[in-house]
Amino acid sequence: MLTISHRGETMPPSPIRKLVPFAEAAKKKGTKVYHLNIGQPDIETPKQALDAVRHADFKVLEYSHSAGNESYRRKLSEYYKKAGIDVDYTQIIITTGGSEAILFGFMSCLDPGDEVIIPEPFYANYNGFAVEAGVEVKPITSYIESGFALPPISEFEKVIGPKTKAIVICNPNNPTGYLYSHEEMETLKQIVIKHNLYLFSDEAYREFCYDGEHFSAMQLKGAEQNVLLMDTISKRYSACGGRIGALVTRNKQVYDTVMKFAQARLSPPSFAQILGEAAVDLPANYFDATKSEYLKRRDTLVSRLNAMPGVFCPNPGGAFYAIARLPIDDADKFCQWLLESFSYNKQTVMLAPATGFYGTKGLGLNEVRLAYVLNSDDLNKAMDCLEKALEAYPGRTELKAVEKTLAG
Amino acid sequence: MLTISHRGETMPPSPIRKLVPFAEAAKKKGTKVYHLNIGQPDIETPKQALDAVRHADFKVLEYSHSAGNESYRRKLSEYYKKAGIDVDYTQIIITTGGSEAILFGFMSCLDPGDEVIIPEPFYANYNGFAVEAGVEVKPITSYIESGFALPPISEFEKVIGPKTKAIVICNPNNPTGYLYSHEEMETLKQIVIKHNLYLFSDEAYREFCYDGEHFSAMQLKGAEQNVLLMDTISKRYSACGGRIGALVTRNKQVYDTVMKFAQARLSPPSFAQILGEAAVDLPANYFDATKSEYLKRRDTLVSRLNAMPGVFCPNPGGAFYAIARLPIDDADKFCQWLLESFSYNKQTVMLAPATGFYGTKGLGLNEVRLAYVLNSDDLNKAMDCLEKALEAYPGRTELKAVEKTLAG
Repeated sequence: MLTISHRGETMPPSPIRKLVPFAEAAKKKGTKVYHLNIGQPDIETPKQALDAVRHADFKVLEYSHSAGNESYRRKLSEYYKKAGIDVDYTQIIITTGGSEAILFGFMSCLDPGDEVIIPEPFYANYNGFAVEAGVEVKPITSYIESGFALPPISEFEKVIGPKTKAIVICNPNNPTGYLYSHEEMETLKQIVIKHNLYLFSDEAYREFCYDGEHFSAMQLKGAEQNVLLMDTISKRYSACGGRIGALVTRNKQVYDTVMKFAQARLSPPSFAQILGEAAVDLPANYFDATKSEYLKRRDTLVSRLNAMPGVFCPNPGGAFYAIARLPIDDADKFCQWLLESFSYNKQTVMLAPATGFYGTKGLGLNEVRLAYVLNSDDLNKAMDCLEKALEAYPGRTELKAVEKTLAG
Repeated sequence: MLTISHRGETMPPSPIRKLVPFAEAAKKKGTKVYHLNIGQPDIETPKQALDAVRHADFKVLEYSHSAGNESYRRKLSEYYKKAGIDVDYTQIIITTGGSEAILFGFMSCLDPGDEVIIPEPFYANYNGFAVEAGVEVKPITSYIESGFALPPISEFEKVIGPKTKAIVICNPNNPTGYLYSHEEMETLKQIVIKHNLYLFSDEAYREFCYDGEHFSAMQLKGAEQNVLLMDTISKRYSACGGRIGALVTRNKQVYDTVMKFAQARLSPPSFAQILGEAAVDLPANYFDATKSEYLKRRDTLVSRLNAMPGVFCPNPGGAFYAIARLPIDDADKFCQWLLESFSYNKQTVMLAPATGFYGTKGLGLNEVRLAYVLNSDDLNKAMDCLEKALEAYPGRTELKAVEKTLAG
């Protein structure tokens, strides 16, 4: 009998997309669904960057260099210099989205059976790339009570063993919105240097920091050989469909190895490289408007959530996600119930159960991730729905009032 | 000490791209280099398809569905029906180039340690995807004397063991240009059914068949569950930079498994999906001009090659590649010498040593692959260079005259 691979069986289905059929059914019934479940921004892709694609003058849509167009890599090094990251274009490989950067990093640095430490909750697709590379994820838990701050060194050292090869962070974080401080980054540096680990830093949301400055892993002095930056233009320019990211490293041996994986798949997409190159020339204040829009949404979301009885949402310092603790028995059940059995003024809200973001089974049962990718009006309407839903939900539980005070 | 992975070490560098520095040096010296080394067609991308991208009306470059836009998949199923392949859009997953289709197929059907049989010489990047998936390639040799026809069943059965899970073919073939007959495809069907194997069929060059009709693995009756089609629009519409391919299968379990890998990387590139969708509506005679151009080039190339003393080139039935046997000691040395030490009228030619396309060490030493991706004028000039080069090359050997007669 023909069988699929064990790897294919092990591959996790997307925890975010499994509710899609319920959302579709709700829409068919005439219910409006507010999508706070996925990180697809509604911000317009900058016209100047789209126009560069529209007006690109070529006759043959050729393969680019496997590392991406040299002109784009040179431009991107300008972008990084402006962001305080001093890298040369020969240290950049353009990838097919941030996804491919993560996969190439895993493939190049880790062997089947090796272990990688990731603070949980974490971006669920890291699990998928780990399965593809045959790598085992060792989660260490960060807690909602501390706003999902970096766990202490001792927690890392508890799980570091001979098979540990790398730590993955996402900064600012998806799904928590947590922005790592300079001090926390220095802590990570100590750990990776002491234990000879790679530090994979996913900085997809670099531009979206609201309380404090972003400190990149690439700025850590003395960890130049340890750090691989996984980047993407998806969120930066609201260009998710372009599928353009980058892997950046000063480690020459890693760079050369990644290049072999890059050559095997020939080249990254040509159209969106043009977009990415043009976007670097956007005016310096381009992000101001986007950032203040996200900030407004964050403030709306967090204050609305914390005003609901039994709900606790720490204030996220970056990205456009927040994790909230709800007075519910089971986030997966609740999110399905929202779509299947609930509506308020013919509207409901789609959330991502946080269980899918934890590596440790049983965690996140009363937590959900909310992506504030809707305008404040819609966000308020979505919060109205959630408020009413929490009142009506049959599986409601009560949280201790004291936890509310942590919301500050 | 930080080390790269064993997988990364094992990953083969591109055999085609390793000569690039020598070509760059030749160009710096003022030598014109005719590139017959890579499959980058000079054919213009159809304007109608490029215009669809230029005029696409959207504000946000969003993620598409992980399987690709439904509208594109529906359109693509029309294309397949016209090509005699009856598939529904729910049996199609849009991939990032044919490359990703191959990788997803390997990942979904094969585990580390499993074996895959590939007639050699074969597309070198299959090696790379095999390393990524931890799979072992078992080559079985096809021979230039028979024009690289499918090896007999007995050769397959010699290497089929308990770990054998799949056979990979490329039809028409890169690098040989060989077009598998209906009979040979039926032979493959017998083998995969008898031994419970998957048949991965890379049909990137489907449109380019000069002597006889293309018979797709998807047309094999009774092997519906065994066959995975790996496809791409790169060559079909000269749209290599779009990075749009497809994995097509009627095997529901495989489809669902591939979807999990597709979801992990979120979506294929959006721009070129627009291009691919528009291209399906090109007039029915669109390929006539391209095909007759390639046919003219093939005839030029093959007749020029076989007219050179000691050279033998079987007539390829499809794609735009040919493998020629040259009276040389070592193809790698010769190809490097062409760029480093030779020029004729300030011109030279870049070829791909066939060694990189064989899995068995020591084969292909006196063979090169030529991609006829230049117009006939340039092709003739390139052949002038090759003819003079073979006269001047210090490592020249002689072939028996009798082999020339096989060229017919």
